[in-house]
Amino acid sequence: MTETPTRVLVLNGPNLNLLGTREPGIYGAATLADIEASLRAVAASASPAVEIDFHQSNHEGVLIDLIQARGSGAAGIIINPGALTHYSIALRDALTAVGTPVIEVHLSNIHARESFRHHSVIAPIAIGQIAGFGPDSYRLALLHILRRLQSDGENAR
Amino acid sequence: MTETPTRVLVLNGPNLNLLGTREPGIYGAATLADIEASLRAVAASASPAVEIDFHQSNHEGVLIDLIQARGSGAAGIIINPGALTHYSIALRDALTAVGTPVIEVHLSNIHARESFRHHSVIAPIAIGQIAGFGPDSYRLALLHILRRLQSDGENAR
Amino acid sequence: MTETPTRVLVLNGPNLNLLGTREPGIYGAATLADIEASLRAVAASASPAVEIDFHQSNHEGVLIDLIQARGSGAAGIIINPGALTHYSIALRDALTAVGTPVIEVHLSNIHARESFRHHSVIAPIAIGQIAGFGPDSYRLALLHILRRLQSDGENAR
Amino acid sequence: MTETPTRVLVLNGPNLNLLGTREPGIYGAATLADIEASLRAVAASASPAVEIDFHQSNHEGVLIDLIQARGSGAAGIIINPGALTHYSIALRDALTAVGTPVIEVHLSNIHARESFRHHSVIAPIAIGQIAGFGPDSYRLALLHILRRLQSDGENAR
Amino acid sequence: MTETPTRVLVLNGPNLNLLGTREPGIYGAATLADIEASLRAVAASASPAVEIDFHQSNHEGVLIDLIQARGSGAAGIIINPGALTHYSIALRDALTAVGTPVIEVHLSNIHARESFRHHSVIAPIAIGQIAGFGPDSYRLALLHILRRLQSDGENAR
Amino acid sequence: MTETPTRVLVLNGPNLNLLGTREPGIYGAATLADIEASLRAVAASASPAVEIDFHQSNHEGVLIDLIQARGSGAAGIIINPGALTHYSIALRDALTAVGTPVIEVHLSNIHARESFRHHSVIAPIAIGQIAGFGPDSYRLALLHILRRLQSDGENAR
Amino acid sequence: MTETPTRVLVLNGPNLNLLGTREPGIYGAATLADIEASLRAVAASASPAVEIDFHQSNHEGVLIDLIQARGSGAAGIIINPGALTHYSIALRDALTAVGTPVIEVHLSNIHARESFRHHSVIAPIAIGQIAGFGPDSYRLALLHILRRLQSDGENAR
Amino acid sequence: MTETPTRVLVLNGPNLNLLGTREPGIYGAATLADIEASLRAVAASASPAVEIDFHQSNHEGVLIDLIQARGSGAAGIIINPGALTHYSIALRDALTAVGTPVIEVHLSNIHARESFRHHSVIAPIAIGQIAGFGPDSYRLALLHILRRLQSDGENAR
Amino acid sequence: MTETPTRVLVLNGPNLNLLGTREPGIYGAATLADIEASLRAVAASASPAVEIDFHQSNHEGVLIDLIQARGSGAAGIIINPGALTHYSIALRDALTAVGTPVIEVHLSNIHARESFRHHSVIAPIAIGQIAGFGPDSYRLALLHILRRLQSDGENAR
Amino acid sequence: MTETPTRVLVLNGPNLNLLGTREPGIYGAATLADIEASLRAVAASASPAVEIDFHQSNHEGVLIDLIQARGSGAAGIIINPGALTHYSIALRDALTAVGTPVIEVHLSNIHARESFRHHSVIAPIAIGQIAGFGPDSYRLALLHILRRLQSDGENAR
Amino acid sequence: MTETPTRVLVLNGPNLNLLGTREPGIYGAATLADIEASLRAVAASASPAVEIDFHQSNHEGVLIDLIQARGSGAAGIIINPGALTHYSIALRDALTAVGTPVIEVHLSNIHARESFRHHSVIAPIAIGQIAGFGPDSYRLALLHILRRLQSDGENAR
Amino acid sequence: MTETPTRVLVLNGPNLNLLGTREPGIYGAATLADIEASLRAVAASASPAVEIDFHQSNHEGVLIDLIQARGSGAAGIIINPGALTHYSIALRDALTAVGTPVIEVHLSNIHARESFRHHSVIAPIAIGQIAGFGPDSYRLALLHILRRLQSDGENAR
Repeated sequence: MTETPTRVLVLNGPNLNLLGTREPGIYGAATLADIEASLRAVAASASPAVEIDFHQSNHEGVLIDLIQARGSGAAGIIINPGALTHYSIALRDALTAVGTPVIEVHLSNIHARESFRHHSVIAPIAIGQIAGFGPDSYRLALLHILRRLQSDGENAR
Repeated sequence: MTETPTRVLVLNGPNLNLLGTREPGIYGAATLADIEASLRAVAASASPAVEIDFHQSNHEGVLIDLIQARGSGAAGIIINPGALTHYSIALRDALTAVGTPVIEVHLSNIHARESFRHHSVIAPIAIGQIAGFGPDSYRLALLHILRRLQSDGENAR
Repeated sequence: MTETPTRVLVLNGPNLNLLGTREPGIYGAATLADIEASLRAVAASASPAVEIDFHQSNHEGVLIDLIQARGSGAAGIIINPGALTHYSIALRDALTAVGTPVIEVHLSNIHARESFRHHSVIAPIAIGQIAGFGPDSYRLALLHILRRLQSDGENAR
Repeated sequence: MTETPTRVLVLNGPNLNLLGTREPGIYGAATLADIEASLRAVAASASPAVEIDFHQSNHEGVLIDLIQARGSGAAGIIINPGALTHYSIALRDALTAVGTPVIEVHLSNIHARESFRHHSVIAPIAIGQIAGFGPDSYRLALLHILRRLQSDGENAR
Repeated sequence: MTETPTRVLVLNGPNLNLLGTREPGIYGAATLADIEASLRAVAASASPAVEIDFHQSNHEGVLIDLIQARGSGAAGIIINPGALTHYSIALRDALTAVGTPVIEVHLSNIHARESFRHHSVIAPIAIGQIAGFGPDSYRLALLHILRRLQSDGENAR
Repeated sequence: MTETPTRVLVLNGPNLNLLGTREPGIYGAATLADIEASLRAVAASASPAVEIDFHQSNHEGVLIDLIQARGSGAAGIIINPGALTHYSIALRDALTAVGTPVIEVHLSNIHARESFRHHSVIAPIAIGQIAGFGPDSYRLALLHILRRLQSDGENAR
Repeated sequence: MTETPTRVLVLNGPNLNLLGTREPGIYGAATLADIEASLRAVAASASPAVEIDFHQSNHEGVLIDLIQARGSGAAGIIINPGALTHYSIALRDALTAVGTPVIEVHLSNIHARESFRHHSVIAPIAIGQIAGFGPDSYRLALLHILRRLQSDGENAR
Repeated sequence: MTETPTRVLVLNGPNLNLLGTREPGIYGAATLADIEASLRAVAASASPAVEIDFHQSNHEGVLIDLIQARGSGAAGIIINPGALTHYSIALRDALTAVGTPVIEVHLSNIHARESFRHHSVIAPIAIGQIAGFGPDSYRLALLHILRRLQSDGENAR
Repeated sequence: MTETPTRVLVLNGPNLNLLGTREPGIYGAATLADIEASLRAVAASASPAVEIDFHQSNHEGVLIDLIQARGSGAAGIIINPGALTHYSIALRDALTAVGTPVIEVHLSNIHARESFRHHSVIAPIAIGQIAGFGPDSYRLALLHILRRLQSDGENAR
Repeated sequence: MTETPTRVLVLNGPNLNLLGTREPGIYGAATLADIEASLRAVAASASPAVEIDFHQSNHEGVLIDLIQARGSGAAGIIINPGALTHYSIALRDALTAVGTPVIEVHLSNIHARESFRHHSVIAPIAIGQIAGFGPDSYRLALLHILRRLQSDGENAR
Repeated sequence: MTETPTRVLVLNGPNLNLLGTREPGIYGAATLADIEASLRAVAASASPAVEIDFHQSNHEGVLIDLIQARGSGAAGIIINPGALTHYSIALRDALTAVGTPVIEVHLSNIHARESFRHHSVIAPIAIGQIAGFGPDSYRLALLHILRRLQSDGENAR
Repeated sequence: MTETPTRVLVLNGPNLNLLGTREPGIYGAATLADIEASLRAVAASASPAVEIDFHQSNHEGVLIDLIQARGSGAAGIIINPGALTHYSIALRDALTAVGTPVIEVHLSNIHARESFRHHSVIAPIAIGQIAGFGPDSYRLALLHILRRLQSDGENAR
């Protein structure tokens, strides 16, 4: 906690690798690579610059392994858990265990979809939730982390 | 829909006028005036600049009147409905009626509070929801509206 | 109860002032003024003629004030509570207190919409409910009140 | 759909044949025959006159047979499903299948009775529901159908 | 159980007589007679041939009478209970009482429709359920019964 | 109410005609005819003798017709509604309408079976319920009616 | 199980000692002593005669002690658990443990009272339930036990 | 918190202005003015005397405004929220924000009325709830506040 | 009802004997004896003086015995049922049977504790409920009974 | 969509690899290899022949990977999700994303097992569900796909 | 808290006195005396030795009295509340009040029995729960208490 | 079943690898390696000695693979499923399939945590559950397995 970390872990859950290649009418044409590139651009232009540590997996276990391996050294975790949002208590426990601030993001407005998508088991242990803004949900999450870093930096001075 | 509107309506529900003056340990020291000033700063530096139309009321009826009177000409509505989030279907219907894109914001992470605060009657008719980032929830919402305006502008060219 | 009252109070809840000016594809082109005019026409041609006391408000408190101020002297209350139908127990209590016969009307068939719109907190204390017939819901309610007045008149003779 | 039908099917479910002969304190002295006669009077004085096709059965299956046999040629179906209102999905499916506009009527205000009577499986596929006005519920339903016919006639001109 | 029966009872519940004549966009153009003919063709070409005993009724009571009268001598019962699927415990009890193996079929995928159609009171006492394959649901059910007969025959040898 | 009626209506719902011929291991070897004979023997030896009016139907509508036609002149109605116990509100309404005292009987202990069999829509409008005593449930019900007749007779003297 | 027991244990739960002395308008004028006397009369005239072992307690623990001490030697247990019906799983377990056939009786029709009285935790482990017949509920229960003894006697011969 | 405040804020929600003028059979003949006078009498005779700050409104927003404007300087808030008790989370949040000790009072015993009146959204943030004692509910609340003041005074000495 | 009773029965349920000796941080330092003494002081200074009949038991059955033995002659019953509040329907039935006015009191605000403590099975049959005021809950209850006695006395004059 | 695919993807979820080797009394002696062989035989004899692409995994993530890698080129997906049926929304989303027609199959009749097995999160996005026919569930699913291919082929001609 | 207590209170709820004498097929042949002896043997061989304070009662009140009288001086409480597990909040409150560490034990696996046995009102205030190991559940609980004592002893050194 | 196996499989679910290294304030300082060592020590000193087969994985699929591969030859399975306890029906089915006795253990008392942690999908198919004793939960489970082995050994002699 003494020195500010400068890496942001971005995790994407099941099926997000298909983004942009399927159902562009619903999810838009942006691919996960586009989102990654866009986040890297924002991070690079931050002052000081921040590193983006970007992953996707269809496996709950792999995501937990990643959180354990790369979560604790990060300045923040931006996670789009995909469908795991609604039932993966194991993912929640992993995030709780590492203690790094978490922001839950969703491309779609999960509160406007089927009722089983309204409830998140992750949100109660996150700083907050950003849902419904497409790829911009990720950018907004990153902008908030940058602001936190900035304000931590100012406090440290 | 032919020309892009340049005003953003920001609405605040019951008890948000107390912000910063009470329970700073929980909600921070920022007042609603601070949030308004901060949004105006972001809006003024946007290109082209955007006008912030900022209101607070403890009355559901006044909020509905405001949505009807000032909602339809706006580029977007950022609303923190406060406790009305959880039961004011009348507020929801007013927002639906004017048709302007709505972003629901919350200072606190409502998904981490009492269970009756997890459910929003507003969210299903909004673009999305941003909850848990303190005053920054408003800024993120405005940044998304600005991006939408920019992208509409680009599409119009 | 000895002499028949000849005024009918018609109350309209939140957002009904927007009727006809928005979403005509759903709610039709009739405005609230059209409904008022249509009710006045029916009332004027009744024998004996009946006065229509017509109001709309987006404020729950104003509606309660109106019920208290103008409800008890009326021959009947026709109320379209809008979204307040589903949660305003205060409105229900006001209607119960004045004791005037109440008819609940809805433009749309609330039983065919979102499940939270199926339940009315007002209906259990009304004579009955008429839902789904557009502006004609109001006319049917008035016709029933006229019939009641007629039959009271006949009984009084 | 090219020419306006001029017959209205009126269906009455289980136990409505007992109307007026039992519990007049609750349901009034009017018999089902009185209701039929009253509807025929209204229909005869309409312009142009409308035929009333009136039936009652205690058998769910007979009601479904009637809907199939006589429903599709009618200008509208007025149905008081009695207790079947609350569970006969088969009746609902029959009404959906013939596609004729349906109005659900009830003598009593079902929303003010036992909670199991608040829910109708028929209402979601009807134009609307009229409940609580005694025999007048039927007359109001017929008046609405006549208005629809009139307005269809005007539109056709 | 000593000798294999060679008749299959096929029962169709309320409104299935309308099949093919209404809403072909949803249910397809096949009539119930087409389904019957198709089953007879499959049954005739089985070795040894099987008799199809095919019925439809809109009356729960008639279906129960049929199950009692013709169910026990059959090699299997294929039943599409229509809307009775969801509430006719009496139908369930009749099927339980005769003891003949039952297959529940549905033209549409009931699990993808309104939530009240997801639950079947019949399925728990059936061998299984086939739903969503249009008229082919019946054929698949018959093919399974033929396989059972075949395998019983083989075991008997 | 001035003179004591001397006929007892006994009604049996769906599938009770199968009694004794199927699943004797569960329901015993007694047939419905045995139960009828046993009731007639008890009724004949009562003083004064009572007539047993005994019926069974698999059709809800037929049972309602019977209640309407033969219920009001009876000293009591003993009804085993079978599976209709759990959903036939129409049967309940018919029994309520005729006003004759009703005793609900069941061969099996419905409170010890599947949970959907625990609830009776008939019981709330009956004098009481006797469940679990096999054919003896009917005899106990009749003995109670005889006692009521006796006590009414004594009161009348 | 080799020789038929000839004692019947009758247990009465909390507040039943007040019977007849309070609220005679609801529960009638019969006292618990009257019920005991009436049961003894029936038991004495049975052939062979049966002994009635009659108790009341306001203490759940005392009732359990009684079931343990006097339940296993009895031919049957008639229990009116009073309010314990609805929550005393301990009473249920005691009855289950002794294994003697149990009949649950109630003076009032619990299915027609407050909804929390509809459910019995005792009934699922009883032979059956008799509710609603006032003191006669006890007599009917005893008559059933006598018939069982008689039929056991016949089977033993 | 250094000096003891000597004003008690008394707030009355929707429809309480009708008290005494309507339905005296239920709510008694006491008006809200009578209650106010009675509280003033008790307050005046306290030692030291306490000021009563008494208000009623049918508007949720007005009540919230009053809590914000006059709540924080008071020694306690006695609130009868009327029907708002059951859904006004905004009222709850206002009371929480000012931090003054709150006592919730009701004229009627809300736990003995319709089930939707059993639950209070206010009570969890109040010191306690007093319900069912008519106008005396207010007096008891005031007596408790006086005792608290007295005991605070003693502690301060 | 002709002469005013002058004894007040005060009953305390399970674990209330531990009051003051354990967890003083939560429940305060007052013991049950302190509460009794305090009530006796208030009762002695009433005019005319009232007798306090004070009991505690950890046994549901003992409490019921006490209500039966000492409840009917009292001017009122003040009961803190402790944990029995939430499940002892037997206690409720005992209180209902004796018919003496009952006031339910609680030291803590049960509506602010675990959700299973929000519901009281006693409250619906009490005059009212006072919860959350520590030992003062008892005093307020007694003050209300004294006022009732006074007003009965005045009415009797 | 222009040319008919000729491969069918068959996926098996957790624990299905144990089939036939354990609990043959329940699931039969057929192994998963037997099912695969049987499907290949049916597919080979189809005209034109169809390729069977058969997989099993205990890992949700592996199944999602397979759906993404091999699902989109297939003529249909037959999936027995095993226990994942009841909670793997991620599996559902993967199937939705590839858009290939899906048939859900189960060896056992899930509607006749524990209640938590009645609900499928997959079924709402499938063509249909076949449950309860043992290994034959797979064959029936394949026969339906073959019929669809045939009918597509006929339509294409 | 200054010196380590060396007595362990073991409490057994309703019907556990029947252990071993009834239903040995289910609960085994061990009696409660056997369990007590077995615990004494383990306790005697502990170093230092521990005293076993062993009780059983069918009375909730007696168990509460025991907890109050003998609970606070003990090193731990091992309680098998029997059926009281599921509803005796009074027992829970007694255990909470004395503050001694509690271990809840069950002979059977309550999570594998009727659903109403899955929930314990005691467990949330216990250290933990051991269920399903027959008499060994008690031994395991004692072994844990011994370990705690040992570790407390080591810490104290 | 003829010869006693001497290996015990110990499985640990997601995030248990973090034990001791994080949040020692909550979970204590013991690591999973400490638990393994402690179990090995107990197992080694058993007579005859038992082998501990110890694994952890964050992957549901890996755990299922392990159960299938190593579960059937073991004398028992001790499993701490971590968060999978609450939703992994697949894990439950794997454990059911291998048939080896299972003991579910938890470090914390899951019945005292968030309500979604109270329910285990594994427990109903386990011998029993031990929750709340920290690392000692594992030791107690092993001690029970050793006792079972011992008693099996004695029975075999």
